[in-house]
Amino acid sequence: MTETTPNHTQTVNGWAALDSSGKIVPFVFKRRENGEEDVTIKIIYCGMCHTDLHNVRNDWGQTIYPVVPGHEITGVVTKVGSRVTEFAVGDRVGVGCIAASCLKCEMCEASEENYCDDIQLTYGGVYWDGSMTYGGYSTMIVSHKRFVVKVPANLPLDAAAPLLCAGITVYSPMKQNGMLDEPAGKRLGIVGLGGLGHVGVKLGKAFGLRVTVISTSPAKEEEAKSRLGADDFVVSTDLKQMEAARKSLDYIIDTVSASHPLGPLLELLKVGGTLVLVGASEKPMGLPSFPLLFARRKVVGSLIGGMKETQEMLDVCGKLNVTCDVEVVKPDYINQAMGRLAKNDVRYRFVVDIAGDGDAAVNAGGD
Amino acid sequence: MTETTPNHTQTVNGWAALDSSGKIVPFVFKRRENGEEDVTIKIIYCGMCHTDLHNVRNDWGQTIYPVVPGHEITGVVTKVGSRVTEFAVGDRVGVGCIAASCLKCEMCEASEENYCDDIQLTYGGVYWDGSMTYGGYSTMIVSHKRFVVKVPANLPLDAAAPLLCAGITVYSPMKQNGMLDEPAGKRLGIVGLGGLGHVGVKLGKAFGLRVTVISTSPAKEEEAKSRLGADDFVVSTDLKQMEAARKSLDYIIDTVSASHPLGPLLELLKVGGTLVLVGASEKPMGLPSFPLLFARRKVVGSLIGGMKETQEMLDVCGKLNVTCDVEVVKPDYINQAMGRLAKNDVRYRFVVDIAGDGDAAVNAGGD
Repeated sequence: MTETTPNHTQTVNGWAALDSSGKIVPFVFKRRENGEEDVTIKIIYCGMCHTDLHNVRNDWGQTIYPVVPGHEITGVVTKVGSRVTEFAVGDRVGVGCIAASCLKCEMCEASEENYCDDIQLTYGGVYWDGSMTYGGYSTMIVSHKRFVVKVPANLPLDAAAPLLCAGITVYSPMKQNGMLDEPAGKRLGIVGLGGLGHVGVKLGKAFGLRVTVISTSPAKEEEAKSRLGADDFVVSTDLKQMEAARKSLDYIIDTVSASHPLGPLLELLKVGGTLVLVGASEKPMGLPSFPLLFARRKVVGSLIGGMKETQEMLDVCGKLNVTCDVEVVKPDYINQAMGRLAKNDVRYRFVVDIAGDGDAAVNAGGD
Repeated sequence: MTETTPNHTQTVNGWAALDSSGKIVPFVFKRRENGEEDVTIKIIYCGMCHTDLHNVRNDWGQTIYPVVPGHEITGVVTKVGSRVTEFAVGDRVGVGCIAASCLKCEMCEASEENYCDDIQLTYGGVYWDGSMTYGGYSTMIVSHKRFVVKVPANLPLDAAAPLLCAGITVYSPMKQNGMLDEPAGKRLGIVGLGGLGHVGVKLGKAFGLRVTVISTSPAKEEEAKSRLGADDFVVSTDLKQMEAARKSLDYIIDTVSASHPLGPLLELLKVGGTLVLVGASEKPMGLPSFPLLFARRKVVGSLIGGMKETQEMLDVCGKLNVTCDVEVVKPDYINQAMGRLAKNDVRYRFVVDIAGDGDAAVNAGGD
């Protein structure tokens, strides 16, 4: 545990769940000193990802308490190590889901750290020094420079924070599966209109794709179209609408993490179309062979993205001015926000105002 | 039914199942006259595909009796229509799974007739004139030229026959998923060592891939390696062997048509690896999201192949001298062969000697 790691001398204020009740309480802990290749960051904002909720409640049975959640971190650099030339004090930066990887394997060499066998996550992971990692629901973080990215100057740190997880999670499969190669005229379906889905719609539109939102909830049509700019809307429980949309899409990004049958979604894809799964369902999903075989369709998984790709995604978002729709909350609202998140009652991401003074902290260039 | 179609004047001897007992009996029926774009073929050999077994027994609930099975047809051209320049009397040709498609859609224009919405199969389909299609368990067939391919001179018509279904079914996904682009050093797994699987091993080796056979049956290791040339063998029920083979393969072609969990197979794939399903399972298969997400693996379906691709596959097989391992049987052995096929008791494909005089018929250039 952290406390026994010799160089963990820096006291940090954070917010943690201490048990599977999932209740978040103030929590004081230690972080390591800033090493030669480390960057110390004053955290300004941290997005609240659905994964945070799963972890604090131990839904996946793997949580080690206390857990300090948060992997959609934006902030300002306050210190850099002697071997850090990439970042300087005052830089506006972000930290996402990854705290460490082996840096030596084929995947790390290709900057696909997200697929390294030794990936360690920003919270609930075990860092190279043996300490547990604690996430962004805290006022300060020490990160290895490999896992820090720069936030473009035109992106506000609150609305940019969820790009570090939700953004890269949808951007990576878009790029890896050719959606950005010749987007004009190509059609993308987005299943689920939450934190991930809403960025998917925005990115899809920004790249020139025609975007269809596929949802169980007819009430979301208005917001999908007028607020987010979706072109089409299909109610997935309406068999007539689903039949009318048969073989109409080139790609689908499915952000739903609950187990659900894939056959009806596959039928929406053209011959050779691709269904990307980015939601981590605990239970296996039913995959019928016929919709795959009869149109050589694909089902592909994708998990966040690599570090080079994450920087690229942020730069692209800066260029296209894409950010997330967020509801900024104070740390003492985290438990209420968790409750609303469980009911998907947010448009579309809660972001915790960690520094408490928001942009003032940024403009001052950190503490 | 055929008998009511005006121009169906040619009497043909065949073998059909009349009911779901699946028993095959001699059956006399009519085929259409040879039209302007038609090719009449004296059938010399017809392979026995597992699909034949499913159809005669009505396993998929869609069989219309009487059914004349057979879609792995080789023979000799005996007549061509006035608008046929591609084939001449005496040509050694093949007919596979497809009898007709719309010829107008995007898929047909790309010669992906196999993915046309109006595809009609070689038996159990409805031809353009409204007649039921009857397959290759018969002495003669009239085919539209679009769905006829040439058999290279060096390939024997018996051992080539199963290429028309089994061969193209494994060749098409190999090509479509990049297995032929840089095969040297790439690793292919073949699941199931039957009619499709054994061609998969042979083609994989011929193309320079390193081939692993994955089977529930340890007894098949010897034949997989010494008879078919597989490099490696993994017993899928042996957890130690499966663990040792984790993340070792670039591709897997899964030829098993019974529903089975896909998670253990996915774990064998490297990051970004592709699992191709070519077996049509009636029940949905269990697809866990974690092995997909954590290594951006793919599950892809593939169904036979297009006509240009089928000709290309035959030409490649001619060049590389790849044929199937067959057991040639007389028509009066079909029922026994079906019984053995149900138990996978064949190395690796039964081929019916339809003409009865085998190569003599070929050398004579047909009747």
